[in-house]
Amino acid sequence: MAPKSTPSSALTRLILGRSPSQSPAISLRHYSAPIDNTIPGAKQKYVPTSGRYPKGFLVSGTHVGVKPTNKSTPDLAFIASETPCAAAAVFTKNKFQAAPVTVSREMLKRRNNTGVRAVIINSGCANAVTGKGGMEDAEKMGLEADRCFEDPNDGKGSSTIVMSTGVIGQRLPIQKILHRIPSAYDALGTSHDHWLATAQAICTTDTFPKLISRAFSLPSSPSSEYRIAGMTKGAGMIHPNMATLLGIIATDAPIAPALLPSLLTNAVNKSFNSISIDGDTSTNDTVAVLANGAAGGKEITSESSEDYAAFQTTLTEFATDLAKLVVRDGEGATKFVTIRVTEAPSEVGARKIASTIARSPLVKTALYGKDANWGRILCATGYAQISEPGMPINEVPEIVPEKTSVSFIPTDGSPELKLLINGEPESVDEARAAEILEHEDLEILVRLGGGKEEAVYWTCDYSHEYITINGDYRT
Amino acid sequence: MAPKSTPSSALTRLILGRSPSQSPAISLRHYSAPIDNTIPGAKQKYVPTSGRYPKGFLVSGTHVGVKPTNKSTPDLAFIASETPCAAAAVFTKNKFQAAPVTVSREMLKRRNNTGVRAVIINSGCANAVTGKGGMEDAEKMGLEADRCFEDPNDGKGSSTIVMSTGVIGQRLPIQKILHRIPSAYDALGTSHDHWLATAQAICTTDTFPKLISRAFSLPSSPSSEYRIAGMTKGAGMIHPNMATLLGIIATDAPIAPALLPSLLTNAVNKSFNSISIDGDTSTNDTVAVLANGAAGGKEITSESSEDYAAFQTTLTEFATDLAKLVVRDGEGATKFVTIRVTEAPSEVGARKIASTIARSPLVKTALYGKDANWGRILCATGYAQISEPGMPINEVPEIVPEKTSVSFIPTDGSPELKLLINGEPESVDEARAAEILEHEDLEILVRLGGGKEEAVYWTCDYSHEYITINGDYRT
Repeated sequence: MAPKSTPSSALTRLILGRSPSQSPAISLRHYSAPIDNTIPGAKQKYVPTSGRYPKGFLVSGTHVGVKPTNKSTPDLAFIASETPCAAAAVFTKNKFQAAPVTVSREMLKRRNNTGVRAVIINSGCANAVTGKGGMEDAEKMGLEADRCFEDPNDGKGSSTIVMSTGVIGQRLPIQKILHRIPSAYDALGTSHDHWLATAQAICTTDTFPKLISRAFSLPSSPSSEYRIAGMTKGAGMIHPNMATLLGIIATDAPIAPALLPSLLTNAVNKSFNSISIDGDTSTNDTVAVLANGAAGGKEITSESSEDYAAFQTTLTEFATDLAKLVVRDGEGATKFVTIRVTEAPSEVGARKIASTIARSPLVKTALYGKDANWGRILCATGYAQISEPGMPINEVPEIVPEKTSVSFIPTDGSPELKLLINGEPESVDEARAAEILEHEDLEILVRLGGGKEEAVYWTCDYSHEYITINGDYRT
Repeated sequence: MAPKSTPSSALTRLILGRSPSQSPAISLRHYSAPIDNTIPGAKQKYVPTSGRYPKGFLVSGTHVGVKPTNKSTPDLAFIASETPCAAAAVFTKNKFQAAPVTVSREMLKRRNNTGVRAVIINSGCANAVTGKGGMEDAEKMGLEADRCFEDPNDGKGSSTIVMSTGVIGQRLPIQKILHRIPSAYDALGTSHDHWLATAQAICTTDTFPKLISRAFSLPSSPSSEYRIAGMTKGAGMIHPNMATLLGIIATDAPIAPALLPSLLTNAVNKSFNSISIDGDTSTNDTVAVLANGAAGGKEITSESSEDYAAFQTTLTEFATDLAKLVVRDGEGATKFVTIRVTEAPSEVGARKIASTIARSPLVKTALYGKDANWGRILCATGYAQISEPGMPINEVPEIVPEKTSVSFIPTDGSPELKLLINGEPESVDEARAAEILEHEDLEILVRLGGGKEEAVYWTCDYSHEYITINGDYRT
């Protein structure tokens, strides 16, 4: 479906038609992530103070008060493209899918990944396990967002992706949300403050808003500048039962709608699907990408083109950087740990081992304790392929104990610390190990000695604070 | 292989030949589990003060000092049958298998599960990831135990099952252990104190020794009394990296050696393979059963006999009670939780869901926080079937959200508390939920509404203490 209006006229209408405010009000930080100096000192550096945002996208973060206790923090995010655009999304595989997941998946299918105008997102309530009423609420959110545009009805139903995050099992305060959607539209803008407020509005218990933007070029038009921006939120399913990960990526590069799903899937497999906070997978997890082509240039229409490959690399790297921010803000996390499994016969096998190490409570507590505990790393490697009793054995690369090596790779560029070489334990320099483990960042390298494939996972540790956060009474 | 000497003469020789002491010395409790009033008050009730032990088995727990800091606590367990007996074992599926696992598996294979005289076990060092030298150490332990008997060499090599538990990656102090094996043989006896000291000797950081014994009968000879006794140890892989679960079961019932492996596998699948402390599976996990037929009666030789079915039930129940003791002593555990998944199309699918709930860190922290958090239970149910990206999807019963119900079953016999009925959240009586969650024991019941199969798992919670124990520096 072709855009119905030129970028500039749509932009003018969007900006002038309803007089968007310059910057949403932001004050209390009781519920959503803070965006001022109450962000933990160590996380401040991850919050950008400026950005290079894609053309033709307008965004806002406004206050609804989805949670009654939230009196002023933004909890409604509106992301609009001035022209109908290509869009794709990857959704949770959890069998209990939230209503907005179902509604958005069906919308994208119905529209063949094209003609999408907006993303509307509320935090504070996940609209998950809410039955038929919840489905109707999710549909209403999309339709109310549609109505903000000139041509809400092209005969294909809603053109808005809907997302929700927050408590499971409670109905949305739908009237409050619907009532505020026109104001959210009025508040749309393109400034860094707009983007930051929008990133804040999707947060739940995150300690900082997660926003990245950057410029890139494509081989076919090296002088053109394209831009990509995105936001995400984590950080575990929490207090009382959050339905968790959301990611939204927008680019002004021109990409054929049919190519967007595979570009996103490839990127997500190496980014959002390669992180682990606690191994739980929520009812609402959704990552979406929108491409409106507003920066002009030749549309990417073939998977074999140079532009396609270049954009895939850009998107994957961008999604990886976003996903890493989720790990940085893992509940109670004191460590950011890269798990790299190399010399594997297959990537799938390497992934399985990396994810098993990343999820092992014993590895995660040892990291918290700054313990160079290669035994637990090796043990997790060794049980990565184990199936439940009675279940078929999973296919994984043959692990050969005598070929397996484990090292810590320091993040300061100093030499690796070898813990196990070809199945033989090293006499570990504990002082050196302690030095390496003092840093927030660490890489664990497992060499399988049996092939050329590799996989990478990012994870954090389990701390007392993780237990405190997640063990809290619901209040 | 037929017994070479009569039970009575062998018993006399064992008891009188080397003057076993009446009770091993037990004093300090710095390393192994205590067996006196330093056992936590809440666990005291799980330590028996008497027992009904199987005929023809003699046991001892003696002090070696495998860990140099252990000055007097028993850390060498010797379990001997007065006659060569049938034996079977189930071993860890971890790819990094400890030396004693390899040695014992090969011995049982070589002997076709018969002609076994003893089990020799040390705690304090797992003899795991110790290379060729470790294999030789494990073999030496078995051969030294063999030498205590009259006829050590029947041409089939060692007749002793070897087990080790403790730190990974360190060599055994093998000379110290070999030197003490004759004394351990001298210390063999049949009293309750002997059994308790033996159960204590296999412990690492367990807070109490885990020992059960009971009498049973078989349909073909209802007037005969058979006995079964067993011990186990847990309780997580810990400080710095323990290689964990061991179980030894001995019975004086007469069972054909060829039937023992399947009897044990069936029992273990519903007991030791249905518990989860933290989802990690160690390098040393081993459960063995010995049957010496010392109580006489007709040997069980057919899988279709009534006696076989009756013994299977007895063995499974016995193993389940042993396995539950491991959960009771989970590291930092404050809760004992039964996860029951019913109305499933297949048992395999029900097991997968039960184990996923049992392993979910978010469920386990909610239990610690006494939080009636059905959202997390439902969420874990929903992602039980999820495979890694790129991995084939696991087969599981179809989960139908609209047919799924979740309840808490109180352990005091009061009515269940329904949290979710056919996919619709209940308005939870929080006061009642809090009341139920105050108890140490709790059952979580998930009804899938799609079949007649079920599965049960037992698990504990994640507490601050779990993090403290497992996050500790290696010292």
